[in-house]
Amino acid sequence: MNSTSLKSFLTSHLNVDEQDILTLLSHCTTKKVKKDTFLLRKNERCSHTFFVEKGLLRQYSIDEKGKEHILAFAPESWFVTDRESSYFNAPSAYYIQALEDSQIVLIDENFIQGLSEKVPSFTNFNNRLLHNHIRHLQRRVNTLLSDSAKERYLQFIKTYPDILIRVPQTMVASYLGITPESLSRVRRELARKNQVNYLGASSRGIKKNTP
Amino acid sequence: MNSTSLKSFLTSHLNVDEQDILTLLSHCTTKKVKKDTFLLRKNERCSHTFFVEKGLLRQYSIDEKGKEHILAFAPESWFVTDRESSYFNAPSAYYIQALEDSQIVLIDENFIQGLSEKVPSFTNFNNRLLHNHIRHLQRRVNTLLSDSAKERYLQFIKTYPDILIRVPQTMVASYLGITPESLSRVRRELARKNQVNYLGASSRGIKKNTP
Repeated sequence: MNSTSLKSFLTSHLNVDEQDILTLLSHCTTKKVKKDTFLLRKNERCSHTFFVEKGLLRQYSIDEKGKEHILAFAPESWFVTDRESSYFNAPSAYYIQALEDSQIVLIDENFIQGLSEKVPSFTNFNNRLLHNHIRHLQRRVNTLLSDSAKERYLQFIKTYPDILIRVPQTMVASYLGITPESLSRVRRELARKNQVNYLGASSRGIKKNTP
Repeated sequence: MNSTSLKSFLTSHLNVDEQDILTLLSHCTTKKVKKDTFLLRKNERCSHTFFVEKGLLRQYSIDEKGKEHILAFAPESWFVTDRESSYFNAPSAYYIQALEDSQIVLIDENFIQGLSEKVPSFTNFNNRLLHNHIRHLQRRVNTLLSDSAKERYLQFIKTYPDILIRVPQTMVASYLGITPESLSRVRRELARKNQVNYLGASSRGIKKNTP
């Protein structure tokens, strides 16, 4: 739950000149938002990528029956956006909402696209963001197709090591695409086998994923 | 099932100079492959994006119990690749296989990356491919999380209008993440309501998606 500034994230994770980073940051806006604030609502056009410096966001859809489905959580150091909406200039099918009081950097998508056509280090930066997004989504599709409830839960803990203690169980079940009852069963089973304690920290050394 | 050359696809879909298209094509290889040929196997490194000029590919994984899970079909005019493997230089978790005798263009990923850092029209081309990929995967995650078997099936027909008559039902079920029995039930129900005939063509005017 440590906060990470976008500047230090870019400096440590990407091979981008400091001057280029400062140019990018001068076009970003930092915003403090209260819990439950919406950064994007269905049918709005998404024009930013959101970087979470502190706090927690979620991206979700609501189906015709009013049920919520969580596509992604975005804790500290994660990016979240609806690229379908921003790139194809389409109304979004999703909501992006703060689940905690948060500090968010808004990165203008048009600015990034424009810069990535001119400055090679930004082409690389943008490319890396897009490939990370594809990697995450492809793994998510494969998990939803092939993994059992238990495997999905263990994968979730790897991806989001501290989210379990920050959101209600119903949201975890929604992300996993399983019922809250299945999630409770999996957690009881794992607790019985002492594989994962109640916080989700594994006794078998599950490592944190770098975004 | 009409064949589409990569050249005519690029000319009609993308705003790229003809000279740049010819440069790209001079670095691509066209390959005729027999049904069942593997273009990628698990644990190999994926170094190409495959464009289907004629025929049909599938990308799939095999779980620990030996069960296959189809992430994507790629008929004529579709691109398919494992970007996680090619971009992050990682062993692939997937197989890419021809389901029919096919004609495929192999686009060298390193070449595309290099070109997209130098030539703006290729930056745009690459960007568009990546965003299309994200759009497809994001919709797939949302469908798997929120849609009923019937909704998934109708979405499938929109995405792949002619695949139903080209692959066994078990593969369609595998793609949809439902059992073959659920798929049969959905098809019977839709046939009874005369919503979708046996070829999958809807009487309510389902439109073909452009890739």
